[in-house]
Amino acid sequence: MPKIVRFNETGGPDVLKIEELPPAEPGEGEVRLKVEAIGLNRAEVMYRRGEYHATPQFPARLGFEGAGVVDAIGPGVSEIRIGDRVAIVPLGTTLGAYGLYGESALVPAYAAARYPDALSPVEGAALWMQYLTAYGALIEYGKIKDDDTILITAASSSVGLAAIQIAKAVGAIAIATTRGVDKKQILLDQGADHVVVTDEDELAESVMAITSGKGASLAFDPVAGLFLEKLAQAAAPHGVIYEYGALYPGPTVYSLMPMLAKSLTIRGFQIFDFVMHPDLLARGKEYVFEGIQSGALRPVIDSTFPLDAIADAHRHMESNRQVGKIVVTV
Amino acid sequence: MPKIVRFNETGGPDVLKIEELPPAEPGEGEVRLKVEAIGLNRAEVMYRRGEYHATPQFPARLGFEGAGVVDAIGPGVSEIRIGDRVAIVPLGTTLGAYGLYGESALVPAYAAARYPDALSPVEGAALWMQYLTAYGALIEYGKIKDDDTILITAASSSVGLAAIQIAKAVGAIAIATTRGVDKKQILLDQGADHVVVTDEDELAESVMAITSGKGASLAFDPVAGLFLEKLAQAAAPHGVIYEYGALYPGPTVYSLMPMLAKSLTIRGFQIFDFVMHPDLLARGKEYVFEGIQSGALRPVIDSTFPLDAIADAHRHMESNRQVGKIVVTV
Repeated sequence: MPKIVRFNETGGPDVLKIEELPPAEPGEGEVRLKVEAIGLNRAEVMYRRGEYHATPQFPARLGFEGAGVVDAIGPGVSEIRIGDRVAIVPLGTTLGAYGLYGESALVPAYAAARYPDALSPVEGAALWMQYLTAYGALIEYGKIKDDDTILITAASSSVGLAAIQIAKAVGAIAIATTRGVDKKQILLDQGADHVVVTDEDELAESVMAITSGKGASLAFDPVAGLFLEKLAQAAAPHGVIYEYGALYPGPTVYSLMPMLAKSLTIRGFQIFDFVMHPDLLARGKEYVFEGIQSGALRPVIDSTFPLDAIADAHRHMESNRQVGKIVVTV
Repeated sequence: MPKIVRFNETGGPDVLKIEELPPAEPGEGEVRLKVEAIGLNRAEVMYRRGEYHATPQFPARLGFEGAGVVDAIGPGVSEIRIGDRVAIVPLGTTLGAYGLYGESALVPAYAAARYPDALSPVEGAALWMQYLTAYGALIEYGKIKDDDTILITAASSSVGLAAIQIAKAVGAIAIATTRGVDKKQILLDQGADHVVVTDEDELAESVMAITSGKGASLAFDPVAGLFLEKLAQAAAPHGVIYEYGALYPGPTVYSLMPMLAKSLTIRGFQIFDFVMHPDLLARGKEYVFEGIQSGALRPVIDSTFPLDAIADAHRHMESNRQVGKIVVTV
């Protein structure tokens, strides 16, 4: 019987248990995946802890990003065949709906997308979430141009690195932030034009010095909280701040004055919403395929863990030492 | 010598003093206005109290909206002539820069705009600020359509009433809010489709009931602060919240979750910024002229005060009993 990760209570990494469960049969519009690799996401850590805006129903599965081979097909599925090599596009806000943490998982057929042949399953599991999130905010909505300055916070995350690659592909200036100095050189190596170490340097001052007082035209941030105010100070007039996460542990407190004085826009962005629109999703996938082919986009894998070490993989994510994607191999 | 209102310290309405000062001569690009009517704005009360984001330099004048007749012209002014009947378009964030509170004021020629002949000077002083603010957010940026539901807070202000008129001119649904029940019928009479009395009814619940659970597609709000969270709860998915003021006495505390879950946008909007773009300003003026001519737009005058009673006029604004514009006649 396939090994499946489940949890029965919110809490630390060790609430994640590996169980052997009978293989499920795909229903209408579903396919079954023989999972080869699982991409970890910060939201899953928050979901496991009970800090996400959707609450787990126990026993809960989790995981919504990964790659594998289709080994069964439900009624009404026509575009996917048994044996297809697919990577799962994260859809929907219920993190437990797919349950990719395991050797076998059912997914809706429309979430199973072929991915570039040049990529391994590990890279396929590090593709859609990061690139579609950064693409959606920077390209589809943000429409960045080569004279823009993009402020990318928490830049050593997989989404942050994806944003650096996309900003550089457009020819914009990419300013990356990281808390500690240890990741500074890595971020420069990954293509950032400038790196601000926020434990040492004042963010707005640094961004203003880099931009000769103009500020960042777009910020791409998963932190929010008290950090939002610093982003507003670092923004250029008419700047747009995309918030795609809620890493800050506490409410977002925000002085309205820079927002009014500089006519700033703050926009919540979630890939789940974005990819539910077939046109947007198709454009995003095409952008990613072309970027992989041209070499502009290259998934950065931080580390891999075997499925049995799923709790260690979560602990590693919570350590914040990673640069790029943490992938669990099956 | 003309009477001019000045103040030498921040504080209550009585810090405003009427002095007689020698008439000023217009400099390069300036015209001098024989002031006939002054439109009061909430920002002036905050500026007088020392609560605005620009700080007065003493002795300070104030007032940036009004109507009158040009009685002197400085070098380099070609489009305005002595005897022209103009209303002043508020430009720039330094509230004391014009100093319209008085019998005579210098203004930049580009801020002096002819206004519809059908309007009195009192109505001319109640024109540009309210209509250009509501037009900018709802029409120029918000691009509202007849299937939109517009949530207009602090709706009995001059800008709020202007927004109701503009929403109805487009054919959208206008939901107005007011704190107390005393203004409910007046707002219905002024064209609001629905009125939510926020001292009695829960805002988000009321808006969801009115919209059959869809929420408001656009909110137009000068309050912010803790009120922003309620607006986010009342918003439809992909809704946009325009913040054009900072009436709430305290920081804006905001839970990020509705913003992420509903992909909301919060956008700071100030007329000062908007009208510095000649194209935007020209489009806005044209919209207002046409709206006045068609009858879709009609300035609502709450009350008039003589110049000698300027402190009473400020007290009346602070009472929050007004519906529409408070105008001081000269």
